[in-house]
Amino acid sequence: MESDAGFIAAVEEAKQGAAEGGVPIGACLVSKDGKILGRGHNMRVQKGSPVLHAEMSALENSGRLPASAYEGATMYTTLSPCDMCTGACILYKVKRVVVGENKSFMGGEDYLKSRGKEVVVLDNAECKQLMEKFMKEKPELWNEDISV
Amino acid sequence: MESDAGFIAAVEEAKQGAAEGGVPIGACLVSKDGKILGRGHNMRVQKGSPVLHAEMSALENSGRLPASAYEGATMYTTLSPCDMCTGACILYKVKRVVVGENKSFMGGEDYLKSRGKEVVVLDNAECKQLMEKFMKEKPELWNEDISV
Repeated sequence: MESDAGFIAAVEEAKQGAAEGGVPIGACLVSKDGKILGRGHNMRVQKGSPVLHAEMSALENSGRLPASAYEGATMYTTLSPCDMCTGACILYKVKRVVVGENKSFMGGEDYLKSRGKEVVVLDNAECKQLMEKFMKEKPELWNEDISV
Repeated sequence: MESDAGFIAAVEEAKQGAAEGGVPIGACLVSKDGKILGRGHNMRVQKGSPVLHAEMSALENSGRLPASAYEGATMYTTLSPCDMCTGACILYKVKRVVVGENKSFMGGEDYLKSRGKEVVVLDNAECKQLMEKFMKEKPELWNEDISV
């Protein structure tokens, strides 16, 4: 699973976010036939955006698509999705959500399952390290992003 | 209720969206002390955006805010919020969601209530007319936006 191109892209996005001084969370939306539809990272710092969490950026960068494009798709994300990103995955009917880790933050995984989504948690060390460093160095930014 | 500045702004945004050839749904986020934090409308057509539904545009146009700014806030929206916008209201802990109408589309109202939000439905004729005209004239655009 962790060798999936979608997950690799999500981690690359998270690292890019960290390099830009932003929230180090990345995501990648992959179609059922394995094509990357869009990838992105959290843009709170870079664009002053409260809505462009990683998963939202991946959706935004996928552009306008018909519902059929999302059928059977997988959303890869380096961190357990918040309520907003959970809702976005439900709206667009992605089939599966692959989560890098949920130790730093536990999002809407149970709700995703209750709405029929498959949720896979990788417990990936690199994803955890990115978040641990970030939460230690910039707790105020993390609290702002997750609205604590 | 319908004379609230927030609701008036949401309807103005919906009309602006219609005038631009877009999805005619508007929203406005108002703080607990009655200040408009941000307002916006669906930008699928105008920006090719799958994430900027009306409520998301209102949040985006509010900019980066601390969690305290959303405390006791109300999200006014001309149409019942989809799963994504429902999740965004939960993430940012708005207190109340005022819905113009839910006849054209019923969104996550029950889930909002289950998460402790107050939901007020106005059953507003103008909101319904905007959506009825749009759904009749551009059903393919509406289906795309709501991922049917």
